[in-house]
Amino acid sequence: MTSKGDPGPPAHRLWGGRFAGGPAPSLDALNRSLAVDQRLWREDIEGSRAWVDALLGAGVLTAEEAAALDTGLARVADRLEGGIPVDSPDEDIHTLVERLLYEEAGEVAGKLHTGRSRNDQVATDSRLWALRQGAALAEELRGLQHALLAQAESSLDLLMPAYTHLRRAQPVRVAHWLLAHFWAFQRDRDRWRQALDRTDVLPLGSGAIAGCPFPIDRDRLRKRLAFAAVSPNSMDAVADRDWVSELVYVAAMVAAHLSRLAEDLILFSTTEFGFVELPEAYTTGSSLMPQKRNPDGLELARGRAARLAGQAAAGLNLLKGLASGYQKDLQEDKTLLFDAFDTLAALLPVTRETVAGLRFNAAALAAAAADPELLATDLADELVRRGVPFREAHGVVGELVRQAEETGRPLLGPDSVSAEHPLLGESAAALDARTSVERRAAAGGTARAAVVQQLAAARAACA
Amino acid sequence: MTSKGDPGPPAHRLWGGRFAGGPAPSLDALNRSLAVDQRLWREDIEGSRAWVDALLGAGVLTAEEAAALDTGLARVADRLEGGIPVDSPDEDIHTLVERLLYEEAGEVAGKLHTGRSRNDQVATDSRLWALRQGAALAEELRGLQHALLAQAESSLDLLMPAYTHLRRAQPVRVAHWLLAHFWAFQRDRDRWRQALDRTDVLPLGSGAIAGCPFPIDRDRLRKRLAFAAVSPNSMDAVADRDWVSELVYVAAMVAAHLSRLAEDLILFSTTEFGFVELPEAYTTGSSLMPQKRNPDGLELARGRAARLAGQAAAGLNLLKGLASGYQKDLQEDKTLLFDAFDTLAALLPVTRETVAGLRFNAAALAAAAADPELLATDLADELVRRGVPFREAHGVVGELVRQAEETGRPLLGPDSVSAEHPLLGESAAALDARTSVERRAAAGGTARAAVVQQLAAARAACA
Amino acid sequence: MTSKGDPGPPAHRLWGGRFAGGPAPSLDALNRSLAVDQRLWREDIEGSRAWVDALLGAGVLTAEEAAALDTGLARVADRLEGGIPVDSPDEDIHTLVERLLYEEAGEVAGKLHTGRSRNDQVATDSRLWALRQGAALAEELRGLQHALLAQAESSLDLLMPAYTHLRRAQPVRVAHWLLAHFWAFQRDRDRWRQALDRTDVLPLGSGAIAGCPFPIDRDRLRKRLAFAAVSPNSMDAVADRDWVSELVYVAAMVAAHLSRLAEDLILFSTTEFGFVELPEAYTTGSSLMPQKRNPDGLELARGRAARLAGQAAAGLNLLKGLASGYQKDLQEDKTLLFDAFDTLAALLPVTRETVAGLRFNAAALAAAAADPELLATDLADELVRRGVPFREAHGVVGELVRQAEETGRPLLGPDSVSAEHPLLGESAAALDARTSVERRAAAGGTARAAVVQQLAAARAACA
Amino acid sequence: MTSKGDPGPPAHRLWGGRFAGGPAPSLDALNRSLAVDQRLWREDIEGSRAWVDALLGAGVLTAEEAAALDTGLARVADRLEGGIPVDSPDEDIHTLVERLLYEEAGEVAGKLHTGRSRNDQVATDSRLWALRQGAALAEELRGLQHALLAQAESSLDLLMPAYTHLRRAQPVRVAHWLLAHFWAFQRDRDRWRQALDRTDVLPLGSGAIAGCPFPIDRDRLRKRLAFAAVSPNSMDAVADRDWVSELVYVAAMVAAHLSRLAEDLILFSTTEFGFVELPEAYTTGSSLMPQKRNPDGLELARGRAARLAGQAAAGLNLLKGLASGYQKDLQEDKTLLFDAFDTLAALLPVTRETVAGLRFNAAALAAAAADPELLATDLADELVRRGVPFREAHGVVGELVRQAEETGRPLLGPDSVSAEHPLLGESAAALDARTSVERRAAAGGTARAAVVQQLAAARAACA
Repeated sequence: MTSKGDPGPPAHRLWGGRFAGGPAPSLDALNRSLAVDQRLWREDIEGSRAWVDALLGAGVLTAEEAAALDTGLARVADRLEGGIPVDSPDEDIHTLVERLLYEEAGEVAGKLHTGRSRNDQVATDSRLWALRQGAALAEELRGLQHALLAQAESSLDLLMPAYTHLRRAQPVRVAHWLLAHFWAFQRDRDRWRQALDRTDVLPLGSGAIAGCPFPIDRDRLRKRLAFAAVSPNSMDAVADRDWVSELVYVAAMVAAHLSRLAEDLILFSTTEFGFVELPEAYTTGSSLMPQKRNPDGLELARGRAARLAGQAAAGLNLLKGLASGYQKDLQEDKTLLFDAFDTLAALLPVTRETVAGLRFNAAALAAAAADPELLATDLADELVRRGVPFREAHGVVGELVRQAEETGRPLLGPDSVSAEHPLLGESAAALDARTSVERRAAAGGTARAAVVQQLAAARAACA
Repeated sequence: MTSKGDPGPPAHRLWGGRFAGGPAPSLDALNRSLAVDQRLWREDIEGSRAWVDALLGAGVLTAEEAAALDTGLARVADRLEGGIPVDSPDEDIHTLVERLLYEEAGEVAGKLHTGRSRNDQVATDSRLWALRQGAALAEELRGLQHALLAQAESSLDLLMPAYTHLRRAQPVRVAHWLLAHFWAFQRDRDRWRQALDRTDVLPLGSGAIAGCPFPIDRDRLRKRLAFAAVSPNSMDAVADRDWVSELVYVAAMVAAHLSRLAEDLILFSTTEFGFVELPEAYTTGSSLMPQKRNPDGLELARGRAARLAGQAAAGLNLLKGLASGYQKDLQEDKTLLFDAFDTLAALLPVTRETVAGLRFNAAALAAAAADPELLATDLADELVRRGVPFREAHGVVGELVRQAEETGRPLLGPDSVSAEHPLLGESAAALDARTSVERRAAAGGTARAAVVQQLAAARAACA
Repeated sequence: MTSKGDPGPPAHRLWGGRFAGGPAPSLDALNRSLAVDQRLWREDIEGSRAWVDALLGAGVLTAEEAAALDTGLARVADRLEGGIPVDSPDEDIHTLVERLLYEEAGEVAGKLHTGRSRNDQVATDSRLWALRQGAALAEELRGLQHALLAQAESSLDLLMPAYTHLRRAQPVRVAHWLLAHFWAFQRDRDRWRQALDRTDVLPLGSGAIAGCPFPIDRDRLRKRLAFAAVSPNSMDAVADRDWVSELVYVAAMVAAHLSRLAEDLILFSTTEFGFVELPEAYTTGSSLMPQKRNPDGLELARGRAARLAGQAAAGLNLLKGLASGYQKDLQEDKTLLFDAFDTLAALLPVTRETVAGLRFNAAALAAAAADPELLATDLADELVRRGVPFREAHGVVGELVRQAEETGRPLLGPDSVSAEHPLLGESAAALDARTSVERRAAAGGTARAAVVQQLAAARAACA
Repeated sequence: MTSKGDPGPPAHRLWGGRFAGGPAPSLDALNRSLAVDQRLWREDIEGSRAWVDALLGAGVLTAEEAAALDTGLARVADRLEGGIPVDSPDEDIHTLVERLLYEEAGEVAGKLHTGRSRNDQVATDSRLWALRQGAALAEELRGLQHALLAQAESSLDLLMPAYTHLRRAQPVRVAHWLLAHFWAFQRDRDRWRQALDRTDVLPLGSGAIAGCPFPIDRDRLRKRLAFAAVSPNSMDAVADRDWVSELVYVAAMVAAHLSRLAEDLILFSTTEFGFVELPEAYTTGSSLMPQKRNPDGLELARGRAARLAGQAAAGLNLLKGLASGYQKDLQEDKTLLFDAFDTLAALLPVTRETVAGLRFNAAALAAAAADPELLATDLADELVRRGVPFREAHGVVGELVRQAEETGRPLLGPDSVSAEHPLLGESAAALDARTSVERRAAAGGTARAAVVQQLAAARAACA
C-alpha cells in the first residue's frame, strides 16, 4: 500500500511517498485517464495475471501469494464485468484494478506491481486490446469485400460509363467498377495485418525503462499472453508508439477508401446520374423537407475520413521531437487508437450493408453507356487499325467530336460525322459499348473474360 | 408529430413519412449524434424559444400557441437541467427536445419546427455555445498571461542564459524570457477574439438552404439571441463551418504556445538545468520509481498540442471538395469543436497555476548566467567599439573561444586568452552578464529599463 | 571578413573562427537554404540598407561608411536584379548578399552585420516579403469575388435546384448559389488582412535573442521599412513564426473554399447535371480519349486544398514542443510560406477566369428547377397555412411523395397525388419553383428582393 | 502528330483536336507539371521502350516501326542525359519526350501512344522511380543502423541515466540507449519494404481507365520492367495512389524517429547535460555570436519531421472523397513523393555521420550515472527481497527520498537516510549504478549479457 495509509478510495495512488501532498485538482482533472483507458480493463487484468505467473516463476512470489493474487484478480474481473462505476476516483485503470485487488485480496495486493511499471503495463494492455479488436475489424473489412464481390458477380453484364475527371470516358462493366474498390480494400487488409504483426510484440518485463531486476522468463510471459515476440530493448519497449501511429494511419487509409466508394455511390444515386438506388434503410430524412432521402451513412464516411487523416498526422506529431524514454505525451495514444478503431467499427458495417443493398438501374446505365462520346477512343483505334498513327487518329477524331458538337449531328451511326470519314465509314456505325468493352481483353481490362478472371482472383484473395 | 403516430420514445423522429421503414441499426448507430450534441441542449432550447417568438411575430403562431410552446420549452429545460438520460433513443439533441416538448406541451409541439430546419438550428446552437465557452476560455488565457506577468515582475533582476539552438547564447533577464511567452498568448487572444467575431453571426432563419418562407424578422431574432449580425445568405449559412475550423486552428495555436512554454519549463526544471522548481502539486509520481516527480501536466500540453494540430488539419479536410449546401460530413464539426475547447479548458488552468507556483533557483541561474561564453558577442562588440569591423571581430573572438577551449584557459578575466589581445586587455576583464544585459537597451531588449517598459506595455495589453 | 581570410567564393561564411574546419558536405547540403530563401533578396537588401541607416543614427558607422555600404548594397541589388547564379556557394541569401557587398564595397562590408543577427534579419526579410505578396493575393481574392458578383448579377432570374446531401432540396436563384461562395471568400479576406496585421511587426533590432547593444532607434527603422509596429520582446521576435503558420492556415482555408466552388462547378458541368459549361480554355484534353474536355484547373484546386491542409498542420507541428528562442527547425517556415503563397497565386487567377467564363444552360436549369420534389416543403407549408402543425404536415407530404413514387403519379399538378388531399387540392397545382423562391423573402433568403439586397451588400463588401 | 500541325515546339500537345483554341495562360501555368515530373524522364523513356516492345508483340507495330521508335527513344534519352532545357514549353515529361521523339524518329513517333494513356504511363513511371530511389533510401537507413550499432559496441560499458518524463530514472548502458533507436529504424525498414512491395505492381496496359484494346502481353511487359506483379483492375490501376500516401507516411515515421534521436542528441550535447560531443563538422556557427556551435542538422531533422507529418495527412486528404477513376487532383502525388524522398535523402547521411562522429564524455556520464536518486527503485527492490510488499516499499523509499531532500543528507551510503532503515542498513551502502544495471538481466534489459545478446540480434537484423 502507499505510505499514505488506507488503500481504499479516495486515497489509493500508485505513488506518493515522496510527495508532501496530492496533486492539485486541475492537474488531477487533466492527468486522470480513467475515462479513456478503462476500456483496457480486461487486458489489464489478464496482463496482471500473467505477471503473477511470471513473479511466481521468478521466485518473487510464493505459490500461496500467487494464488491469492490470481484469485483476487479474477474476482476483480467479475466485478468489472458489471461495469466501471462512473465516480471511480482512480487516476487510471491500473490504479483502479490495484485498488479493487486490495479489496479482494488484502495486503498481498501490494506485491503485484513488483518489478513492473505502468510504462510496460499499459503498453502491454493496449497492444493486447489492439490485436483483438484489430482482428475483428479485419473481418469486417473482409465482409465489405465480400459484399462488393457479390454485387460484382451479379452485375457482370451491366455496362456503365467509366469516368475520369468526372467526365464520361469509356464504357466498363459495373462489376469492373465495383472490383476497383475491392482491390483497394485488399491492399488495406494487407497493411492492417502487417501493422498488427508489428503490434504483436510483448513489452511486459521492461519495467519503467531499464528492464526487470527479477529473473522473470519473458518468453513464458509471451506465450501466456499469446504474443508473437518479445520486445528486444526495454527503453524502446516503453516508448514505442509507432504501432499506434501506424494502425491509425492504416485506419485513415481504409476510411479514405470508404470515402471514395461513398463519393461514387452518392454521385451515382443522385437524380442526375440515377445509376443506382441506395437501400432505403441506409438513408435518412430531413426535419424540414419531406421528400428527402439522404445518404448520411456515406457522407459520414467522407467526414470521418477527413477526421482520421488529421489523427494520422497527430499520431506522428506526438512523436516528433520527443526525447527517448516514456514521456507523458504518449498517453494521448489511446485517444487516437480508440477513435480510429471506433470509426472503422461504425463505418464498415454500414458500408457493407449499403453495398449489399444496392439496386442498379439497368435502364439508366444502358442509356448512359450508349453515349457515343464514350466510343471516341475506339473510333481512333479503328483508324489505327487502318494504319493511321494514333496521335493523328486522336486529332482526327477530336475534330469529329467538335464537328458533331457544333453541327448537332451524331458522332457515330449511319448519318454521323464519322461515317463520312473515308477510312471509317461503316466501321463507325458498327461500334457500340459492348464491342468496346470486349476489346479490352488484356489482363486487368473490362472484357467479360478478363473480369471473370479478375473475379476469381478476388475471390481467392479474400477467401 | 410524425405520420408514424405516437411521438414518444422510441418512435419520435423528425422525418419518416416518405420511408417504408426506419433506419437500419448499423446506420442508426453511426448516424446518431446525441452523445456528442447533447452538450448543446441549453442553446437548443434558447434558440427554440427565440424561434417561437419569431413565428409569433410572423403571425404563424397565435399568442396562445406561442405561450404554450415557450412554457413547454422552459419545462423541458428544467428537466434537462437534471441530466440527459443515458438511454435516450433520440437521433440528436433536436429530436430529444422536440420529443420532450410533446410530453410537456402536447400537439402544439408539432408547430415549433415550422419554417426551420435542423440545418439552421444546429448552426445556431453551436455558434451560441462557442461564443459563450469561447469567452470563458479567453478569460482563462488572460489568467495565464497574468500569472506570467506576476512572475516576470518578481524576477526582474534575475539573469539567466538565453538559448538559441538550445545552446547558451547571451544573458537575459528571467522576466524577459517569461514575457516572450506572454506576447505569444497576447497574439492568440487577438486571434481568438477575431475568430469569435466571425462566429457571432446568426444562421437561424435560413431554413434548410433556401431561406425562410414565413415573414420572420431576423433582426429581432438576432437581438433576442444577442448575435452581432445576421447571416447574409441562407446557402452559406447552413454550410459554413469555417468558424469551427478557425476556432480549432486558434486553439491548436494556443496549445502549440503552451507546449513551447511547457518544453522550457520541463528543460529548466531538470536536474541538469536546475533553474526552476515546479510546484509539487503540479507533478506526479511513478508507480515503480519512488524518487520521481514528473511534469505530467506540461508533457500533456505538448501531447495535446500534437493532437490539436491534427484536428486543425481535419477541420480543413472536412471542407475540402465538399459540394455547397449542407452535407452530413459537417456533423463532424462538433467533435472537433468540443475537443478543442475541452483541451484548452483542461490545459489553461494547469499551466496558469504551474506558472504561478514556479520557484526560481537563484544560485543555479547566477552560475549559468556567469558562463563566459555568453559574453563572446559582447567581446566582439568591444572590438567593434575600438574600430574593428564586426565580421573581423567575430572571427577574432571565435578564435579566442577555440583557444580557450583547447588550452583550458578562461575566455574572460585577468588570465584569460582575451586579456592578451592588444585591443581587448582590461576591457575583457570588465565584462559581465549584468553589463551585457544593460547594454541591450534598445526597445524590446533585455536591459532593465527596456524590460520595465515592456512590462508596462504587457500590463496594458491584458488589463 | 571572416578569420578564414578571403571573403570571396567559396570561402565566405558568416561564422567560422571557432571552428577547426568547415561543415561536412552532407551537412552543408542539408543546411544550405539559398535555393529557398533567395526569393527574399530584395527584402534582404532593403532591410540591410535600413540597418545601415540605423547604425549611422546610433553612431556606429560614420557618414562615409554608411554611404559606402548603402551604395554597395544598391549595386548588389542591381546585380541580383539580373538573377542569382545557380552555382552560388553561399549558405543562404544573407551570406550571398554580404559576399557580394565585399566585392562591391570592400572591407567596410564587414561593418554591416554589427549588432544584427541572421535571426532578426531573416524574420524581417520574410515578414516584408509576406506583407507585399500578401497584399497582392488579397487583390486576387477580391478579383475572384468580383467575378462571382458579375455572374450573380447576370443570373439573377435563373433558377436551379439547391442541394443538400447532394439531393435536390429546394429551388434557388443561381445568383444565390454564386453569392454563397462569395461570402466565404469575404470572410477569408478578413482573415487574411488580420493575419497580415499580425505580420506587420518589425523584428529588426532584436539581435540574436537578447536585443541590440548599440543605441539604434527602432522606431526610425520601423518607419523606414514601413512596418506598423515594433516587436516588444527580442526573444519572441526571433522565434515567433505564428504569423507564418497563420498565413498558411488562412491560405489553406481559401484553398478549401476554392475546392468547394470547384466541386460545384465540376459537378454542375458534367453531362449528367449539365447546368453550366466551363470556358473551353480552362479545360484540357486527354492524351488517349479524343472527346475529353477535363476541368483540370478545378480539380487541381481540390488537390492543392488537400496539400495546404497538410501544410497548415505542419506549420503547427513545427512549433510543437519547441524550446523558446530561435531553433533551426524554424527555417522550414519559408518552404511552407512560399508554397502557400505560390499555390494561391496559381489557383486564384484560374478560378477567377473560369468563373468569369461560365455559361449557364438555361434549359437544363429550368428543367431541373421544375422537379416537383423540390416543392415538397412548400406543400407542407401550404398545410401549415391551413392550420396543420408542421410536424404533421411533414408526415403527410412525406407519404404523398412515397405514394407518388410507388404509383408513378405526379406529386403536384391537376392529376397529382397531392391534389386529392382535402386541404391541398388546387393549391397543390398552383405551386411552382418561382412561387417557392419568392416566398423565401426573409433576409438572406432566395427571393428576388432579398437577393438584390444581398448583391448590394456584397458589392459594398468588396468595393 | 496532333491535328494542329507541326509537332515541334511550342505547338506539341497530346490533345487538342476537339478544342477550338489552346489553354489559357493562367491554366497552362497551373496545369503544367514539367518542373516537377521531369525527374521521371528516365523511367518515362524506359516505360516507353517497353511499350514499343509490347505493341510489337501485339502486332500493332511492325518490326521496323518498333526499331525506329526504340532507337529514337534511346536518342531522346541521350539528349536528356545532358539536362532538360529550362524553357521547355511542354505540358509534362510525357509531352516533352514525345516531342523529342518526333524530332528523332519522325512521323512514326505518332504510333507510340497507341493503346496507352498518360494515366497508366505516369503511374508506371512514378512507381518505377519510387522503387529505385526507395531501395537506395533503405540502404541509407541501414547505414544509419550500422552507425548506431558501431557506437553501441564501443560504448557497451559506459553507463548513463535513463530518463522518463525527462527526469532521471534508472542507470542504463549507453549502448542500450543507442539500441533503443536502432530498433525503431528496424521497424521502419520493414514498413518501407512492405510499402515498396505494394508499389511493385505494373499499371501499364490499363489505358485511360478501361484497359488496353490491343492484345498486349502484360506479363511480358512486367518482366521487361522488372515489376513483381501486374495490376488486376484497370480502373484501380490508374487511380491508385495509396502507395504514394503510404511511402510518404513511412518516410514521415522515419523522420519522426530521426527527430527523437536528434532531440536526445541535442539535449545530451548541451552544456547542461554534457554527455556527448557532436562532431564539429556537423555543427554550424552563428553570424552574431562567435562562441556558438549549433546542432543545425539535428534541428532540421525535427523541423522536417514536422513538415512530413503534414505531408502524410496531405497524402490522405488528397484521396478523401475523390470519385473513382483518375482525377487531376492525383497529380499532386509527385510533389508529396519527391519531397518525402528528398527529405530522407538529405537527413539520413547527416544523421548517420553525426552518430558515427559522436564522442561520449565518460566523466560526465559517470558523474550523472552516480546520482543516488537513480537507485531509488533498487532500494525498494531491496526491501522487496526482504519481504516487504513492493507497494509499501515504494512508499518507504519515497519518504526516504523526501527526507534526503529536506535534510540535505544523502539517500545512499554510510551516513545516508536509508542506512538508518532497519531492513536496509548496509545493503543501502552497497548499491551502485553498476549493480543496478547488472540486475536487469531479463531479456531486453540493460545488464551486460542482455545487451550483448541484443547487439547480436541487432547485427543479424540489419546484416
